[in-house]
Amino acid sequence: MGRTSDAREKILDAAHSLIELRGYSALGVAEICKAAGVPKGSFYYFFESKEALALAVLDEHWQTQRDDWARALQDGDAEPLSRLRRLFEQTQAGLCAGQQSCGTVSGCMFGNLTLELSNQTEPIRARLQQIFDAQVEMVDTVIAEAQERGEVTVGDTGDAARSVVAQLEGQVLFAKLYNNTRHLEALWDNCLALLSARPTDMAAISS
Amino acid sequence: MGRTSDAREKILDAAHSLIELRGYSALGVAEICKAAGVPKGSFYYFFESKEALALAVLDEHWQTQRDDWARALQDGDAEPLSRLRRLFEQTQAGLCAGQQSCGTVSGCMFGNLTLELSNQTEPIRARLQQIFDAQVEMVDTVIAEAQERGEVTVGDTGDAARSVVAQLEGQVLFAKLYNNTRHLEALWDNCLALLSARPTDMAAISS
Repeated sequence: MGRTSDAREKILDAAHSLIELRGYSALGVAEICKAAGVPKGSFYYFFESKEALALAVLDEHWQTQRDDWARALQDGDAEPLSRLRRLFEQTQAGLCAGQQSCGTVSGCMFGNLTLELSNQTEPIRARLQQIFDAQVEMVDTVIAEAQERGEVTVGDTGDAARSVVAQLEGQVLFAKLYNNTRHLEALWDNCLALLSARPTDMAAISS
Repeated sequence: MGRTSDAREKILDAAHSLIELRGYSALGVAEICKAAGVPKGSFYYFFESKEALALAVLDEHWQTQRDDWARALQDGDAEPLSRLRRLFEQTQAGLCAGQQSCGTVSGCMFGNLTLELSNQTEPIRARLQQIFDAQVEMVDTVIAEAQERGEVTVGDTGDAARSVVAQLEGQVLFAKLYNNTRHLEALWDNCLALLSARPTDMAAISS
């Protein structure tokens, strides 16, 4: 049983790395199994299809990222806007570390698969919608808190949160395109602008 | 000779539609030729490789889109900020028309291929960089004009232009994910916020 679950983990890990590097469509089950060092026959013991594997990779990746986002956004000791800033810094550091280990900025797996696949497989589209909804909700909670404290002025906190996540995805796209994480540095100022943060608060938090 | 260039156009058109629907990696030369109604043998008469075809599709698509962007952004009769607004409305209308004809929002081909391919083929990465650089430059020119007229306040107009294009790409990603072009409606307000547009000008242009 130990060996069995080990093979599943190996397949998941290999698929995660390969999807991050080359997307989903370019991969075959045989290649994933070869990279995982498991016989191809065992693949279908764990996963019904390549799509089922992709869903499992998405779930596992979101589980890890959700914990990272929660650490950045839900630490009650820090001011709400500083927590958003921490999320951007953490995202940039993560992309930077990935670039150092594999030579290129791989971007955001959720954004990558959204643009590659959302029109092709409905189960993957639905899962990606749930993940982005959850991201927007986490950011929304922080913006609502800042709004309550009079630190930002937005019409609808949910729409504002979606715009912040859209800016994040757009700058991550540029970081991948130019293989340069410096693009993420614009996020903090842009977030303050999108939220109409009050200049006094901006100065206090930026310093 | 008429027939020859006709076959090249047919291959380009078929590849364009298929790449828009399913990306690049999922396609094979045989499938493209079948959709184009040309014998597979003739493919390599016109294109050295599938990558060469993708570069030709990108060039052709950018040539058309550059004209659209120029029409929206370079009409000297309108105020600079209204021209940016026209670009967003035109983008939304284009995605909407595509959705009506094929059932799904296909997104931005340049954004799609950036996230799918920029780490896999350097020639495609370089071409996409040129295209996004050109987009940013076109938006930069308009922002610089608005800045000169005192209608916006940004530090660096080039950085501001990149943030506007990042916001556009991020919202197009959501439009594709949710198959809903309504996400593009946020672009105008977000652009004004990103550019710190003066409230009086915002009111004048929004009304």
